[in-house]
Amino acid sequence: MRKLQITYLPSGIAVHVPVGTTLFNAAHWAGLPIDSTCGGRGTCGKCAVRVVSREAEPTPADHRHLAQERIEMGWRLSCRCEVHEDMSCEVPRPMRTPRAATMGVGRLVLLEPNVRKLLLELPEPALEDHRSHLERIRDALAVEGLEIDVGPSLLRRLAATLADGVTVTATVVGHHLVAVEAGDTRDRTFGVSFDVGTTTVVATLVDLRSGAAAAVASTINRQAPFGADVIARIGHAMTGPQAIEQLRAAVLETMNDLLDETCAAADVAPAHVYESVVVGNATMLHLLLGVDPRSIALSPFVATFLEPQDLRAADVGLEILPEGRVALFPSIGAYVGADIVADVLATGLARGEKLRLLIDVGTNGEIVCGSAERVVATAAPAGPAFEGGQILHGMRATEGAIEGVVLGDQVRLQVIGSDREPRGICGSGLIDTVAQLRLAGLLKENGILLSGEEATGHPLADRLVEDADGVRAFALTRDIVLSQLDIRELQSAKAAIATGIQVALDALGLAPEQLDEVLLAGSFGTYINPESARVVGLVPSVPVERIRAVGNTASEGAKMALVSFREREMAFGFPAFIEYVELSGVADFNERFIRNLAFPALEAVG
Amino acid sequence: MRKLQITYLPSGIAVHVPVGTTLFNAAHWAGLPIDSTCGGRGTCGKCAVRVVSREAEPTPADHRHLAQERIEMGWRLSCRCEVHEDMSCEVPRPMRTPRAATMGVGRLVLLEPNVRKLLLELPEPALEDHRSHLERIRDALAVEGLEIDVGPSLLRRLAATLADGVTVTATVVGHHLVAVEAGDTRDRTFGVSFDVGTTTVVATLVDLRSGAAAAVASTINRQAPFGADVIARIGHAMTGPQAIEQLRAAVLETMNDLLDETCAAADVAPAHVYESVVVGNATMLHLLLGVDPRSIALSPFVATFLEPQDLRAADVGLEILPEGRVALFPSIGAYVGADIVADVLATGLARGEKLRLLIDVGTNGEIVCGSAERVVATAAPAGPAFEGGQILHGMRATEGAIEGVVLGDQVRLQVIGSDREPRGICGSGLIDTVAQLRLAGLLKENGILLSGEEATGHPLADRLVEDADGVRAFALTRDIVLSQLDIRELQSAKAAIATGIQVALDALGLAPEQLDEVLLAGSFGTYINPESARVVGLVPSVPVERIRAVGNTASEGAKMALVSFREREMAFGFPAFIEYVELSGVADFNERFIRNLAFPALEAVG
Repeated sequence: MRKLQITYLPSGIAVHVPVGTTLFNAAHWAGLPIDSTCGGRGTCGKCAVRVVSREAEPTPADHRHLAQERIEMGWRLSCRCEVHEDMSCEVPRPMRTPRAATMGVGRLVLLEPNVRKLLLELPEPALEDHRSHLERIRDALAVEGLEIDVGPSLLRRLAATLADGVTVTATVVGHHLVAVEAGDTRDRTFGVSFDVGTTTVVATLVDLRSGAAAAVASTINRQAPFGADVIARIGHAMTGPQAIEQLRAAVLETMNDLLDETCAAADVAPAHVYESVVVGNATMLHLLLGVDPRSIALSPFVATFLEPQDLRAADVGLEILPEGRVALFPSIGAYVGADIVADVLATGLARGEKLRLLIDVGTNGEIVCGSAERVVATAAPAGPAFEGGQILHGMRATEGAIEGVVLGDQVRLQVIGSDREPRGICGSGLIDTVAQLRLAGLLKENGILLSGEEATGHPLADRLVEDADGVRAFALTRDIVLSQLDIRELQSAKAAIATGIQVALDALGLAPEQLDEVLLAGSFGTYINPESARVVGLVPSVPVERIRAVGNTASEGAKMALVSFREREMAFGFPAFIEYVELSGVADFNERFIRNLAFPALEAVG
Repeated sequence: MRKLQITYLPSGIAVHVPVGTTLFNAAHWAGLPIDSTCGGRGTCGKCAVRVVSREAEPTPADHRHLAQERIEMGWRLSCRCEVHEDMSCEVPRPMRTPRAATMGVGRLVLLEPNVRKLLLELPEPALEDHRSHLERIRDALAVEGLEIDVGPSLLRRLAATLADGVTVTATVVGHHLVAVEAGDTRDRTFGVSFDVGTTTVVATLVDLRSGAAAAVASTINRQAPFGADVIARIGHAMTGPQAIEQLRAAVLETMNDLLDETCAAADVAPAHVYESVVVGNATMLHLLLGVDPRSIALSPFVATFLEPQDLRAADVGLEILPEGRVALFPSIGAYVGADIVADVLATGLARGEKLRLLIDVGTNGEIVCGSAERVVATAAPAGPAFEGGQILHGMRATEGAIEGVVLGDQVRLQVIGSDREPRGICGSGLIDTVAQLRLAGLLKENGILLSGEEATGHPLADRLVEDADGVRAFALTRDIVLSQLDIRELQSAKAAIATGIQVALDALGLAPEQLDEVLLAGSFGTYINPESARVVGLVPSVPVERIRAVGNTASEGAKMALVSFREREMAFGFPAFIEYVELSGVADFNERFIRNLAFPALEAVG
């Protein structure tokens, strides 16, 4: 893709962007905030810059906001000015210091939420001024550069509110007028972000004035009884429309409970929550809207929708202000969902110069790789091993799970919870055990455990046992063993992800050692020992200091989009920018997968 | 208001329009159809004309649809090209003969409904084409120049429809995708218009392919038990939210019954009715949406909304296709409603060269006067006399009502219904009786009936009687009399309207004799004898051949907007063009009203 250079004066900061990017957005990529109160919608007229390289065609918005004299001097609204060749422009010093917060992975986010509250002093109706109540509000908002849509439910309450006085607070979300409240209510402006995982749902109630989280809560997705992973959920959905409704109701109940919990914790009325940003995989978003997800599970694996959705809260069933809005992030593909788009936003992967690889490990491993130049994404069917599924003593990362293992002269275990009594092995414990077995020389490159005999003399030789069926195993405790079959499961899971990574790197023409960073995202990623991940070959063999656990970046990305319309617009542009590779369409996938079953040679990862 | 001249070549047709009108709309006013499939939305690219007077700034739509070479030759999309000075342009001969129908008062309407059905052959999903179902449809529609919004309820059904095959019919209403049906359903494309009167509701089911009415039905507004006129209805609404809900449900039930009736008569499934256009007075539209109408009844008489509304049918409760749209016409003022805007559309009053006066007589008399130059509207509080209210033997225009009277040597009555047995007097009968009494010399200019004595020798002298209270009356039959008090009521009613007309003419600086036409609109207008209206002074003293009953132009206007998006856009522009005069704000209203109580001198109307 051809890139154009934009140079911002007087700083001289330069940025490379695709054709058609606006000067406003490009400045934002470059970390250079241009003043704006409308967030780049072309309505506030504050983002003008002076184009100095050559004349840019003025747009209707320029004519609306700028004097002819200024237009002739080269001034243009940067949010309307698209780049079609290399350009230079002069940016005036901002009139105000934009408020910003650090969010995601060290990203500075300007506080410009899509929710805007405006205090309006409306003129009293008079015989000579027969404007309707609505028109009075519309005119007052037009002065602020806002054009609005109004639904019938708001109209129903308008007359009563305006009877109480002529000072009102209008709340505009995007181009929707969602509330008109008597008096000044600007100090109660909240939004809520949801990361709807197949397993866990996380809600963050955000004070949109400060960008700070007012409360955070998470809980198990109430769809869990209908299946552990998306394929099982889709299987249930395929039993009929009432099953889809059941799944819809379950996730909605989960979300509404979390909303209640966060609102109660922060003492916020749900009616003061005006917008919700939702991320999650494509299946979760389909089910949230009650849309049949079956085509996601059946070849050729297409979703009914991947596009962002902008919905009325009451139509979704989310119990914030009924006229409030619910924004669903877009997905990249049926298996690279809106949560991954949020990951990319929070990490800045698609806008930085560094070459980065992001892995979100779960039953599907989503893989995103690239930089501002070019980004490729794919999803690898890892299976349930990392969530403890198909593992003899596997379990989820809850109380009693072995989450870390060190093998020296003896076995040292790190167990989740207070009583430290191990009950099983979770994903990070599994990776640790296998990596430690490799490093201890007890596990061969091809994945075969040594027998006790073969390990004679090794301090842990007596831990190598055989089960009733004669299958080899390594005993972590008297009751908890890791069997040869468990190791096979892990090999399959990591081989799928490693293959996905290879395919992505190949698409970009890159070798693993060129990667500047490997980011492990998602709650699981947070607990994986980066060293172990490298030893088992889950991540490429890069120096361990380049591997970072970045936490729940999906939640962070959703929060960023809630507090910043610019960030949201950027994220919503990712699906068009990021190239999706369907792994099942890759010709030599099986051959590569089989080659990746083996563990890396120790000298390669030592 | 400054007007600009646009000349269309090669015909040389010229039209005068306000600044900012598009070449496309102006051509439409001039009766010159410019080819277009998108109806002037800037998306089809078919409406290009060549500007020859001077260079017009090209718009982004021009760049999108026209080659640079053509732009340089002066070609512009006429629907995007606004007029800011006198202009000439060349219109190519249309590539196709646009389909049209004569509607309203002799108006030729192009069939370009806002509802569009498109047959789409969608590519089958494949591994290398991971577009979502929605995107496949979006892309296919983009080829036709259509950009669409999609709601969650449509998404819910999309997967199932697309599973049935890749040939589908997409229905787009405005910019909303409202249906995706398997196979080719283009021959089932219907819309329904409603004229929601305080008394009567009229529904017209329209085949949008031909513009023809498939069925028409009307019935009494089920709100009637809650009050005879808008003030009574508002009075009921003011008793609380449950009363508003009661009124909303009543009118909605009326409309849904009519929808059922027309659909059954024409054998049309309600799911094949994709759009409804609704006109009615502002109070009726408020109640239809459940909006508190109280401010309409209280000085300074403002509405909560006057603007057009574009709503989802399910949100309104209208039982066409749930995702279908309901378009409410805009109102001009709290008492000059959307029905009057539809009257103006159907009569062409605001776009013609003739000076016309339109009167819609009911409990309020709405008055619109002017031409394409300038239009003024007002509403006069006529009271219930014309609907038989406050009249001793008054009744509505139903079975048994005396609707026409001729007084010669004897009394000849025209009675509604088959058995011809008179039961009372309706509005048109009242006007006729009074006019005939004036012409017969039995009623003085000041409104006083002669006594039997004063009329001695007159063939009808014995009809002049006195009631028990000594009040004079004229006996139409043995049981049915018109009393002196009834005549007073009529005087009040006609004086209010005559004053409104005077105020409107004064605002325009016109004398009554300059009027080219006087149009009596509404069902009541249809039955008024134009000569009688002139004799009693309800309409100005213009030659009787200039007075026309134009029928239910509100219904006609709604129907026109249903079959033609251009007409709708024009109508929706009327409120900004038409000047509203609030009669209660006119300083000398009372003096004028009192002067108008008297009847015109016979020599003035003879």
